[in-house]
Amino acid sequence: MKQDYSDLTRLFAPRTVALVGASDQGDRFGTRVFRQMLNFGFPGTIYPVNPRAQELFGHRCYPSVASLPHTPDHVGIIVATERVFDVLDECAARGVPFATVYSAGFAEMGSPAGHERQRRLIELARRTGMRIMGPNCNGVINFVDRFAMTSTGAIGGPRRAPGNIGVISHSGGLGQITVMWRAQETGLGISYEASIGNEADLDSLDFARFMLRSDATDVILMAIEGIKDGAKLVEVAREAAEREKPIVVLKLGRTATGSRAAASHTGAIAGADAIYDAAFKQLGLIRVAETYELYEVATLLRTRRWPKGRRAASAAATGGNIVQLADIGEALGIEWPEYGAATQAKLAQLMPGYGKVSNPTDMTSLATGEPENFRRALVAIAQDPSVDVIAPIFAFNRRKDIELGAAFVRECPKSAAMLWVGGCTDDAAFGPSDLVASGVPVFRNAQPCLRALRAAMDFGAFVAEHKAGRLVPERPASIDRARAATLLRASGATLTEREAKTILAAYGLPVTHEALAATPEDALAHARALGSAVALKIDSPDIAHKTEAGAIRLGVRGDAAVRRGYAEVVAAARAFAPHARLNGVLVQEMVAGGIEMMLGIVRDPVFGPVVAAGFGGIHVEVLLDVSYRIAPVTPHEAVRMLRELRGFELLQGVRGARPADIDALAEALVRLSWLAADFAASIDELDVNPLLVFERGAGVKVVDALIVKAEAR
Amino acid sequence: MKQDYSDLTRLFAPRTVALVGASDQGDRFGTRVFRQMLNFGFPGTIYPVNPRAQELFGHRCYPSVASLPHTPDHVGIIVATERVFDVLDECAARGVPFATVYSAGFAEMGSPAGHERQRRLIELARRTGMRIMGPNCNGVINFVDRFAMTSTGAIGGPRRAPGNIGVISHSGGLGQITVMWRAQETGLGISYEASIGNEADLDSLDFARFMLRSDATDVILMAIEGIKDGAKLVEVAREAAEREKPIVVLKLGRTATGSRAAASHTGAIAGADAIYDAAFKQLGLIRVAETYELYEVATLLRTRRWPKGRRAASAAATGGNIVQLADIGEALGIEWPEYGAATQAKLAQLMPGYGKVSNPTDMTSLATGEPENFRRALVAIAQDPSVDVIAPIFAFNRRKDIELGAAFVRECPKSAAMLWVGGCTDDAAFGPSDLVASGVPVFRNAQPCLRALRAAMDFGAFVAEHKAGRLVPERPASIDRARAATLLRASGATLTEREAKTILAAYGLPVTHEALAATPEDALAHARALGSAVALKIDSPDIAHKTEAGAIRLGVRGDAAVRRGYAEVVAAARAFAPHARLNGVLVQEMVAGGIEMMLGIVRDPVFGPVVAAGFGGIHVEVLLDVSYRIAPVTPHEAVRMLRELRGFELLQGVRGARPADIDALAEALVRLSWLAADFAASIDELDVNPLLVFERGAGVKVVDALIVKAEAR
Repeated sequence: MKQDYSDLTRLFAPRTVALVGASDQGDRFGTRVFRQMLNFGFPGTIYPVNPRAQELFGHRCYPSVASLPHTPDHVGIIVATERVFDVLDECAARGVPFATVYSAGFAEMGSPAGHERQRRLIELARRTGMRIMGPNCNGVINFVDRFAMTSTGAIGGPRRAPGNIGVISHSGGLGQITVMWRAQETGLGISYEASIGNEADLDSLDFARFMLRSDATDVILMAIEGIKDGAKLVEVAREAAEREKPIVVLKLGRTATGSRAAASHTGAIAGADAIYDAAFKQLGLIRVAETYELYEVATLLRTRRWPKGRRAASAAATGGNIVQLADIGEALGIEWPEYGAATQAKLAQLMPGYGKVSNPTDMTSLATGEPENFRRALVAIAQDPSVDVIAPIFAFNRRKDIELGAAFVRECPKSAAMLWVGGCTDDAAFGPSDLVASGVPVFRNAQPCLRALRAAMDFGAFVAEHKAGRLVPERPASIDRARAATLLRASGATLTEREAKTILAAYGLPVTHEALAATPEDALAHARALGSAVALKIDSPDIAHKTEAGAIRLGVRGDAAVRRGYAEVVAAARAFAPHARLNGVLVQEMVAGGIEMMLGIVRDPVFGPVVAAGFGGIHVEVLLDVSYRIAPVTPHEAVRMLRELRGFELLQGVRGARPADIDALAEALVRLSWLAADFAASIDELDVNPLLVFERGAGVKVVDALIVKAEAR
Repeated sequence: MKQDYSDLTRLFAPRTVALVGASDQGDRFGTRVFRQMLNFGFPGTIYPVNPRAQELFGHRCYPSVASLPHTPDHVGIIVATERVFDVLDECAARGVPFATVYSAGFAEMGSPAGHERQRRLIELARRTGMRIMGPNCNGVINFVDRFAMTSTGAIGGPRRAPGNIGVISHSGGLGQITVMWRAQETGLGISYEASIGNEADLDSLDFARFMLRSDATDVILMAIEGIKDGAKLVEVAREAAEREKPIVVLKLGRTATGSRAAASHTGAIAGADAIYDAAFKQLGLIRVAETYELYEVATLLRTRRWPKGRRAASAAATGGNIVQLADIGEALGIEWPEYGAATQAKLAQLMPGYGKVSNPTDMTSLATGEPENFRRALVAIAQDPSVDVIAPIFAFNRRKDIELGAAFVRECPKSAAMLWVGGCTDDAAFGPSDLVASGVPVFRNAQPCLRALRAAMDFGAFVAEHKAGRLVPERPASIDRARAATLLRASGATLTEREAKTILAAYGLPVTHEALAATPEDALAHARALGSAVALKIDSPDIAHKTEAGAIRLGVRGDAAVRRGYAEVVAAARAFAPHARLNGVLVQEMVAGGIEMMLGIVRDPVFGPVVAAGFGGIHVEVLLDVSYRIAPVTPHEAVRMLRELRGFELLQGVRGARPADIDALAEALVRLSWLAADFAASIDELDVNPLLVFERGAGVKVVDALIVKAEAR
């Protein structure tokens, strides 16, 4: 019978652990891991396994997993690649719940043999129910329960105090040194660290879920080269919002070079960066650009005080730092509201003769000489209802004045951070890391301080949306999924414009009035019925790009012109593709005015169906001004997508133009996203190009569309 | 007789200094400055001046500047605002060459009285020749000659060793603490620091020039809220290129909030940020976004090894860090070339069985265990002719291995930097600052490391351009400046399209064929002469926006249509502006095809005439996709301007379009920039909109233009 080992408690905190390949020889990997496990103060039972030793560092050594007196909760495996499976088989036979494979030689090789070994590993895990970490990994560190099974030099020296930050990384060097150790150097405490390697079985999200559910962790930092399962990320992100525990992500392999480097490092799929970016936004994950930003942001997030909005305040004795803070804050979308009358009155008492005080506040020498005055000013500012967060700046001060400031930040009922740019005048050894270690969010530089504030604001807003139940997409009314399915089944691999629009219409997207004409007479009748100038377009499953074929006539008016147009379109199609099947000519209303948009669906290997939106013309191709979301989306998310476009202002009305019907456009995006979600397996590609957006209240209309079915691949 | 005190040597290194307002009472400003001057080990003569004291800290105190036994080289003034002028008068009477006014109460107040005081100060300096630093400043620190006259707590404790980095800041707190002291904490050495305050007389560029010319300074860091004199910046920047001493600039007051904060801080004009940005690029100044970036970039630039290009290489034992480095480098425009065959062969010997080695190079455990192997690999890579810079990564290593790496970086004949993300396994106290203090460029994080490499690449390229003499704009042939001047003088405040184009034509810009018709018959004759469809546009000095007036007809063909068009255009103009003077109707060739551009001239309060370029339509107004340069520009610079546009690809030909005539467009920009430079005083605004750019070889054409003269303001 298979067991459920989705709870990783016994992987991180085994009662009994075995280390296959433990050694006491020189600086070997097995020696380093074993020695560090001992030094780390593990309170449980340790079984070194090595057929060539009787005893290692005073611990009785066993020849095999089979020979162990008890079944360990967790077995570490450091053996030659070819021996890994023998050891795993032994573990499975003993009913070991968790194994960690440190050995390399799997998918990261990029070779068929490596991939085959990784496949076997996955198959073994699925078959036996044993959960496997790695391969090609560097294990876990648990500061809470004093268990470490890893080779990294970053846990040398006295064991660091635990804290409420968890770290997950594909790379051992990056996660354990460049993130974990460096975070600890700044004074932060870590609960758990996992260097997950190739994640053949247990993946980054399994570790994230464990940390989310552990009381010891409040913030999770992930340095990853990719995500294996987009749907699982959606679940984990919802749980993070529910538990109000932010996940901060550094996604490596963003660029072509980085992506290649990542592939050869852990064999991870780097994936389309723009879609990762969209997914992180949509799921409330905080994305950062460098390793140090991970722990800098966590310095504030771990206090879990979520600002109600984006309005910040600050005060300092140094004007230049105030200018810099104001600048960077504004560039990050943080507002500096004016203080209210009550606050102004309180500040006037503290700073007599200064007139109206602006925000951020340069208190000049009033702050330097009078720490108690400065503290009172901060309290007054923090009480202002127009202020959501406060970040006072300190430069060179006496220790007790810094500590007074730290106490203010710690006890402030609102979200607060300290920016300490200088040193301590009467205790040179006293520094920011001392305050950080005591739980105070202290920053050295304006940029990271404000980035952290902005992250707290964003996560706070996301949690609020989640609690209000606004994040779960609801299927819009009047979607005829069955009809769309029937139409899709009935059509060829590449749908004609007419077929594609019929499917879009079944999902409630407004499309042009049109009818298929099999003869010139049909065309005449349809044109008369439409009652205005028409467009004539060839309808053929074999001609996807009608303009290229010259098989389109626009603005055709009058019987003679329609007849001539019909003949020309058919002739052009025959000339372009002599063997193409021709269904006839589509007679379509001409639509004038409106803003041209391109909407689309792409299938992402990680996230599945994704909707895309951009302006027509050069915006998408040259300016790459496109925004994406995982399907389906809520109306709110659809509007956010549009707002992300650099050209968004065009929809609001520029140069005296009236605002466009943004609500109707958002609704079209929502409906399209449901189509994407419902037919994720069967639609490979869908382009609506153009969709015209008219004035507010006048709606939108699909003018042309293309659908390619998955079978066409 | 006035003296020339443009050389600030005696301000920074006086033989004799007087401090008016020196004190020994409590923590007063005058006490702090005086005590710190003494503690800093100043080897010259110090005269404290204070009528209320006989002796201060063992130094004989004088009642006034007049009573001093010798004339000091430099007098510091810390007195109440109203007394500043009395002291300055005394100084001038004694022939003091340099005075520093610490007192506030000048332009930074924003009040008329404050501005009036600042004006008096400037007038006094001009009249007497005495050079004045400040007011509202915090003086200078000279680590080379042990002179400090400043209140900052950042020079408390033992005096730091000097280094080759100079710092200039408007703000004392920012420059002395957030830049200088923080730089010193990382191990960097400072030569001079100047906290310049309101720069009434001596401005930031006077200090920059002094540092450029001093042997003690190789890199200059400026944290400024604005530049007073754009033309002086051009001179100083040229001198920096000539001396190969980079200037790194943090421009504060970028945003609206920051700009307001800056105005109330030192009364500096923040100015249009986009134009500053353009000027810095054009002048080879390195712009950064935060205080810490100033000294981080300097960590590398101080080694003054300029890369020949943008091709970087790296190697490490930690794959995750390699992926991050590759990513960030590529995002910063740094290339990671493949190693040549010779390098591959050398690496194959060091890493047997690894096949082809990629760049950046993950050496895996081969680097961890074998430091000498790693060093050999670095030497081999650095010798590769396709590599311009090398930045090896270290994680956790023994001290001697780190030192081996540092020696490689120091001695490498190419530009090199070390990225050390971790710690030292056998000497916990040994850290990056030890290596930085010994002159090695060591970075903690990938982002700053690569930003510094990119800055070195950019400055190297700029120096090369400068040495090749390619930075000085040359006046193009066939510019008829006299004719343009005559035409400009003859015209009204707002020129008609026809007048504007005549002036542009005098500068060699191709304009549409056109002629002014005073009667319908004239119009007919002109239309026939042009021999195709024409445009008809009202010509009136009182109607700048003809489209708005409805006084334009396009594509008019045939005698009857021309007659009718003439009448309609005149009627529309009369209806729109009954009192407008009408010169007649402009009959103009219709120009088809081409890409629409907008070129223009703006007058910047700091930099004077500036040229602007962008695509027509929404690009400029909605997407804000505009690039600027100080006029005049070189053809090379004009092309760089165009390349900066996000839509640049449009000019290279997208969707099968042929490439546009970029050379002709650049030439038009060059010619326009000379017009801007020649008539900086008389042209307030000039818009060429549109200018059409045709296929490569087919040139450009000005279709419409507007000039507003300065007198129209």
